[in-house]
Amino acid sequence: MTKKLRELVVDETFEMFVLLKNADVRLARNGKKFIAFTFQDTSGTVDGKYWGASDEEIELFTSGKVVFLNGKRELYQNMPQIKILHLRVTNEGEPSEPTLYMEKAPVKIEELQEELNRFLFDINHAKWQRVVRFLLNKYQKEFFDFPAAKRNHHAFAGGLAYHTVTMLRLAKAVCEQYSQVNPSLLYAGIILHDLGKVRELSGALSTEYTLSGNLLGHIVMIDEEITKACQELTINDTDEDIIILKHVILAHHGLLEYGSPVRPKIMEAEILHQLDNLDASIQMMLGALKQVNPGEYTERIFGLDNRNFYLPKI
Amino acid sequence: MTKKLRELVVDETFEMFVLLKNADVRLARNGKKFIAFTFQDTSGTVDGKYWGASDEEIELFTSGKVVFLNGKRELYQNMPQIKILHLRVTNEGEPSEPTLYMEKAPVKIEELQEELNRFLFDINHAKWQRVVRFLLNKYQKEFFDFPAAKRNHHAFAGGLAYHTVTMLRLAKAVCEQYSQVNPSLLYAGIILHDLGKVRELSGALSTEYTLSGNLLGHIVMIDEEITKACQELTINDTDEDIIILKHVILAHHGLLEYGSPVRPKIMEAEILHQLDNLDASIQMMLGALKQVNPGEYTERIFGLDNRNFYLPKI
Amino acid sequence: MTKKLRELVVDETFEMFVLLKNADVRLARNGKKFIAFTFQDTSGTVDGKYWGASDEEIELFTSGKVVFLNGKRELYQNMPQIKILHLRVTNEGEPSEPTLYMEKAPVKIEELQEELNRFLFDINHAKWQRVVRFLLNKYQKEFFDFPAAKRNHHAFAGGLAYHTVTMLRLAKAVCEQYSQVNPSLLYAGIILHDLGKVRELSGALSTEYTLSGNLLGHIVMIDEEITKACQELTINDTDEDIIILKHVILAHHGLLEYGSPVRPKIMEAEILHQLDNLDASIQMMLGALKQVNPGEYTERIFGLDNRNFYLPKI
Amino acid sequence: MTKKLRELVVDETFEMFVLLKNADVRLARNGKKFIAFTFQDTSGTVDGKYWGASDEEIELFTSGKVVFLNGKRELYQNMPQIKILHLRVTNEGEPSEPTLYMEKAPVKIEELQEELNRFLFDINHAKWQRVVRFLLNKYQKEFFDFPAAKRNHHAFAGGLAYHTVTMLRLAKAVCEQYSQVNPSLLYAGIILHDLGKVRELSGALSTEYTLSGNLLGHIVMIDEEITKACQELTINDTDEDIIILKHVILAHHGLLEYGSPVRPKIMEAEILHQLDNLDASIQMMLGALKQVNPGEYTERIFGLDNRNFYLPKI
Amino acid sequence: MTKKLRELVVDETFEMFVLLKNADVRLARNGKKFIAFTFQDTSGTVDGKYWGASDEEIELFTSGKVVFLNGKRELYQNMPQIKILHLRVTNEGEPSEPTLYMEKAPVKIEELQEELNRFLFDINHAKWQRVVRFLLNKYQKEFFDFPAAKRNHHAFAGGLAYHTVTMLRLAKAVCEQYSQVNPSLLYAGIILHDLGKVRELSGALSTEYTLSGNLLGHIVMIDEEITKACQELTINDTDEDIIILKHVILAHHGLLEYGSPVRPKIMEAEILHQLDNLDASIQMMLGALKQVNPGEYTERIFGLDNRNFYLPKI
Amino acid sequence: MTKKLRELVVDETFEMFVLLKNADVRLARNGKKFIAFTFQDTSGTVDGKYWGASDEEIELFTSGKVVFLNGKRELYQNMPQIKILHLRVTNEGEPSEPTLYMEKAPVKIEELQEELNRFLFDINHAKWQRVVRFLLNKYQKEFFDFPAAKRNHHAFAGGLAYHTVTMLRLAKAVCEQYSQVNPSLLYAGIILHDLGKVRELSGALSTEYTLSGNLLGHIVMIDEEITKACQELTINDTDEDIIILKHVILAHHGLLEYGSPVRPKIMEAEILHQLDNLDASIQMMLGALKQVNPGEYTERIFGLDNRNFYLPKI
Repeated sequence: MTKKLRELVVDETFEMFVLLKNADVRLARNGKKFIAFTFQDTSGTVDGKYWGASDEEIELFTSGKVVFLNGKRELYQNMPQIKILHLRVTNEGEPSEPTLYMEKAPVKIEELQEELNRFLFDINHAKWQRVVRFLLNKYQKEFFDFPAAKRNHHAFAGGLAYHTVTMLRLAKAVCEQYSQVNPSLLYAGIILHDLGKVRELSGALSTEYTLSGNLLGHIVMIDEEITKACQELTINDTDEDIIILKHVILAHHGLLEYGSPVRPKIMEAEILHQLDNLDASIQMMLGALKQVNPGEYTERIFGLDNRNFYLPKI
Repeated sequence: MTKKLRELVVDETFEMFVLLKNADVRLARNGKKFIAFTFQDTSGTVDGKYWGASDEEIELFTSGKVVFLNGKRELYQNMPQIKILHLRVTNEGEPSEPTLYMEKAPVKIEELQEELNRFLFDINHAKWQRVVRFLLNKYQKEFFDFPAAKRNHHAFAGGLAYHTVTMLRLAKAVCEQYSQVNPSLLYAGIILHDLGKVRELSGALSTEYTLSGNLLGHIVMIDEEITKACQELTINDTDEDIIILKHVILAHHGLLEYGSPVRPKIMEAEILHQLDNLDASIQMMLGALKQVNPGEYTERIFGLDNRNFYLPKI
Repeated sequence: MTKKLRELVVDETFEMFVLLKNADVRLARNGKKFIAFTFQDTSGTVDGKYWGASDEEIELFTSGKVVFLNGKRELYQNMPQIKILHLRVTNEGEPSEPTLYMEKAPVKIEELQEELNRFLFDINHAKWQRVVRFLLNKYQKEFFDFPAAKRNHHAFAGGLAYHTVTMLRLAKAVCEQYSQVNPSLLYAGIILHDLGKVRELSGALSTEYTLSGNLLGHIVMIDEEITKACQELTINDTDEDIIILKHVILAHHGLLEYGSPVRPKIMEAEILHQLDNLDASIQMMLGALKQVNPGEYTERIFGLDNRNFYLPKI
Repeated sequence: MTKKLRELVVDETFEMFVLLKNADVRLARNGKKFIAFTFQDTSGTVDGKYWGASDEEIELFTSGKVVFLNGKRELYQNMPQIKILHLRVTNEGEPSEPTLYMEKAPVKIEELQEELNRFLFDINHAKWQRVVRFLLNKYQKEFFDFPAAKRNHHAFAGGLAYHTVTMLRLAKAVCEQYSQVNPSLLYAGIILHDLGKVRELSGALSTEYTLSGNLLGHIVMIDEEITKACQELTINDTDEDIIILKHVILAHHGLLEYGSPVRPKIMEAEILHQLDNLDASIQMMLGALKQVNPGEYTERIFGLDNRNFYLPKI
Repeated sequence: MTKKLRELVVDETFEMFVLLKNADVRLARNGKKFIAFTFQDTSGTVDGKYWGASDEEIELFTSGKVVFLNGKRELYQNMPQIKILHLRVTNEGEPSEPTLYMEKAPVKIEELQEELNRFLFDINHAKWQRVVRFLLNKYQKEFFDFPAAKRNHHAFAGGLAYHTVTMLRLAKAVCEQYSQVNPSLLYAGIILHDLGKVRELSGALSTEYTLSGNLLGHIVMIDEEITKACQELTINDTDEDIIILKHVILAHHGLLEYGSPVRPKIMEAEILHQLDNLDASIQMMLGALKQVNPGEYTERIFGLDNRNFYLPKI
Repeated sequence: MTKKLRELVVDETFEMFVLLKNADVRLARNGKKFIAFTFQDTSGTVDGKYWGASDEEIELFTSGKVVFLNGKRELYQNMPQIKILHLRVTNEGEPSEPTLYMEKAPVKIEELQEELNRFLFDINHAKWQRVVRFLLNKYQKEFFDFPAAKRNHHAFAGGLAYHTVTMLRLAKAVCEQYSQVNPSLLYAGIILHDLGKVRELSGALSTEYTLSGNLLGHIVMIDEEITKACQELTINDTDEDIIILKHVILAHHGLLEYGSPVRPKIMEAEILHQLDNLDASIQMMLGALKQVNPGEYTERIFGLDNRNFYLPKI
């Protein structure tokens, strides 16, 4: 059986179907155009440059397409790289569906749905549960399809739901340890905290920020969604319990300079923020560490203050 | 005719009706209670301590009451101070309405309304005008009654409307100078930018933050109000023009660390932010400078990075 | 049965034994001395001032003593306060042991020891286990007796051990969720991370910083202790596994400006740091929230950027 | 009539005279030299690379020269670009005067002079007016010729005078609104605030910082100029009115970290600083926005914290 | 022979002449006035409160006066304090000259002058020497009389000259070690760097900031003084050597946020800045350390980021 | 006699032996590999690119090798550059020892040793002297061989010892001036302060950070070394004198954000920190200034906040 992209060793030649995750046209210093590709399959991504691209090829090989690639795995400044020997678009009958090649959440959607449902049952506060269910229904498809971010952490299809569920599990451990923490509030807040991203981002494939993502941001948009949900459910959104639910979500970036309009002023808001941070940090570190061998350092991770991490030999 | 509080000279004794703006009960070092009063009339405020207050007096002389004060104007560490000679509550028939003694906007409400109306006519964009009119109607009373802040700038009855109108005038000068600036957007944004304060603050008398003021903030609440207004007016709030109006308002604190969830990304948003800053700064400086004589420095102004200002002799 | 300090209602008079947690002699503005007491029992602390203290009384009523207090619970600027009616030292036969009145970890020492032992078994790496056991033996008494901080979080007898165990429990949830995390390294790091505090602080009663606490700090001192332990156990402390264990501990404050000489560069170091933060934050919030009623705000919490927190009515 | 540089459409070929605003010689990766040109005419600037430049061509085509360009307008990474087909220096009789191709203030010099004169009349304070007139006379030519900055805002010939006049207009609106503001002080301060730039910068063409610009800065140099003007006019420069005029100018960058040796401590100083900021910000945004179409984002603007701005479709 | 203020032991009663360094009238909580004195003699300062001061006494005992004090040395919150038993103004013939009681530079003025002269000889650059001599002559009296700061470091009569000379000595060691450093430039810069303080401060007794000190600052004022000196000496102040001398002085606070309008861009400017810092730091630490015994910590030092320092027992 | 690398003039061709300080293989935009060399001899370094390198050449010309270079000195973007005409490895009998081509301390090792010995004699405190001598013996070879940093300041063989001695000389000047400073403590601290770098860095040739350098840092490692030295010398490392010595060293980066786990709390610690800064700054400026001519600016210096410095014409 054929190897995947990140399984190739240096100098190995290969043929395989891959997704063009990015295809940027640039000008070489000799005045000719080339395409800077990022090839992707479920094992990850590798870059490769296509020199002297014709205008037809530029039109043909665009971001989001599946292609058949004949190449050689090389090493360039300690980073894996593909030398392109030949490239063609897929023929009829060949596996050309982009989602076949995209990274996925490490858990199946069905399992995530099931696990999420069990947490929904644990939201004992009626209004919160109604709001959460209403919004999960409204954005069900996107919730299980979207990444949790354009890049950085959980930037893969299903990342939003996966991140939500792993946070819920950590939250459960906190609630078991500290009986004073309100699980209903914490769970409801976690489930909704990043749901505004379904309006902030364009989707799972070639993810971009939308206009409202740029000008309003996902934090404000989920607040608007709760406001509208309350109107449809005829819940008074100036009741203390709704104010508190909104606060827990608005404050989840922790600091004003990270885009929350208020800092956490309720215990569950502070906990939600810290768990979000912890889960995203672990995911970013795991993503970088799986690219290196024991005894090596990772690339610098933008979302962790540009630190690089060491993978111990032990 | 009787002098006002800030017109008294040092060592002058007087009798007058004043409002108890603050009445904090504290413990003296001899173990007895005293009340730290802030007396107010339309000329400003002066502090005074009531030593050895009995429990009955503590119940009688509470914040928000009008009293008849017999006192002497003194100077203490360069700050004016009232030595209390006698104090009593008002009798029937005496002028006991708090608003009689509170600082007011330097312009009459009617004039503010009229001027505001002229600016409303200049909002040429139909949806923006409908939203602005809807919300001004909904909160008409509060808009012309509330202060623009709990303390710092425009902290007086009518301050919110006054601040809005002075900003509109400066905005007009900008629009006349730079034809590329969109007056409709700038005016609509200015009129709504602080309207969320009618939910953030408790009112003009003994102003406090409400729970939603603390947990959501006025910036998020005006966004919610626009969202609800659009639903009632059956305007699609995901249209670009509504997104832009919301952005201009969400961004008006300029920096994330000042509580805006997004930084200005539209020219009118940046201008609105800077005009807000300019108008508030001038108001704060005027408030402090009117308390001192030429050749003196003001108190330090919290809202201006704790700077004090010099009033030239020229 | 007699009430405890924090169970008294306003204006209630009472007699009880209490510990003098603090006894600061100050000068009143009339030139006479008074003592500013902080009274303590297991329910918490309340302040009270003793006016016109004689020199004999000043010598008698010192910090760390148990006294018999006849007083009245009052309210002063929204803070509970004791009006002292009478005060005397304990007579023979009366319960004068300070530890009877000090806050304790909410779990018994024996249970903490047992739970800790189970985690020790889960450290599968021989050298790490030997170092951890060696140092736990060396400082066994202090580990289960010391607070985790002079003030802020876990500032009670047994706080160090309690904080260590609650962190271990959260760490277990992380390890269960993310199989790539090394439990041995994370557990060993957690158990040792604050052990240097037994040299940094003077003990559980009247906790102060020692000279080496001030000049070296607990982070450097635990590194020294591991260095010495390795010498005694004839483990080479330049081996990678010891370097890594030291790193995980040195980096646990997360940022250089918080006193770690290096930032986390290993995944388990980053996780340890975030769990430390999370557990300390929850402990600080719980401590402040238990002093207020639903619908009220806590005091500002120094260790959480001086934020105050709201206890919802729900 | 021939199109201008910024009016060309993609793939259009053209012939025109243009100014070489920049001509940087660089080494291509094949070891050969090329020239990175920035072409300029009154419509703006576009870049273009000249591959394989000979040493003669490098000497011929230098910054500041006018050339005849035969080229093709292309698009490269979303930025307009010129593909150079042929290039030659101008022949006798052809329009080779650089100023013909440089961006200019949007108002004629004569109008700026006239408007400035009207403001000079409004400076009612004799000493201030004498100092201002003296320095305007001394640097008259440079004042109407220099840009207001090397890059960022008003970086065109006449930019200094244009920026001064637009600030004066906004200042007038402030003075009309707030009678407590001293127009003489504000106008005198505005006229002089950036005049030190005539010593800080080298001129309108190929603008560079001078040695004294780098080592002293324009803020200190205008202070020196006022000092010398006072000596020549036998005005005592330790009089309060001169101290105040100097302060208003020294403080105009607002913050110490932006190079003002003192922060504003006089109301007019604070207003001058904010108006300077506002006018420069608007100019920077207008400059960037005129390069894009509705629905697009501008380049990032260095002087506005590297933000990019959206041009609404409305 | 009588002891000095800081030589008294706790509970010792005494009679001596002292200077009233400060005499602030305040209001006690019983409504009566008291005076908060700072007594001073050449050994240092101690505070003492005068309770129940009459209006006559308030007029009599003002800052800057010498008085005859009968008091008792006490300890209050670990700080020395004077209990005032009796106080009277001096009679004729008694030593009432304030300078007799003020702290002085630890070296005689004559020695400072002599040492300074030797350094003047080492300024080999003619223009720099003429400027330095001109300004030293102009402000000779003030230079040897003024403190180097209102508080913090060298806040005593002669402090300015003393600080200048100790910096020159350290500078000499640097020049001897690094032959590339220009001694003429470094010495000239050091001698002038704080000379603007003779215009910034009001003098040695009851030192206050002048108006120009507040609005212009000593850094700008010494630049003005050099400008004027050049005009009187007919030196062209746009010559590179004068620009460099000015730069070295303008940049001596090192950072813009500390009030320098430019950062050091010449090696001697950077060295001058660091030596200034070093000498001031040592002086502040010495001042604080001489108040404590080995094994104790000093008060927190404002000018050193509020750190306190430990005096070792060794 | 042949010129050295930094003595060549533009366009001069030459033949000489040089060290390959760096040899990075990169990919040109035409898809071919090239080597980016940094050539070094005792006069400094210059870069040069080797286009179209074969795989054999890439293996041959590696970092740390001596080669015979036939080249031409060119100028590229104002930076000196070598155009490689021919390159070959050294033959037997040719001078191929890397140290012949590396920058050295400007003083001979023997002189540094002698001077250091004189300072050792001035450490009058027995325990400090024993610890210092013990560690100097243990790491004697490395101390006189290592650089003081990987790059930035004193990044040459012997740099560690040279930096130590020049700091000691400046310290002597401070001690002569201020008798209250303890020379024994200051000298002992200076000698040890950077000794941990012998474990942090890999050596003088191709200097890299070691794993313990990255994960523990040189500050913690010298503390460990003192701890171990005390054990071997049977000195109690919890004695105040050892705590103080450790503190002075731990605090030498001055600020927590620069990696010191404690800020200076002893006078000698603060002085050591500032002298370290001063000496390193001078060395960095000298290094940059010797590359330019009078009237020019240096490159930006990373370790001095990225400032560039001007070399005056005077």
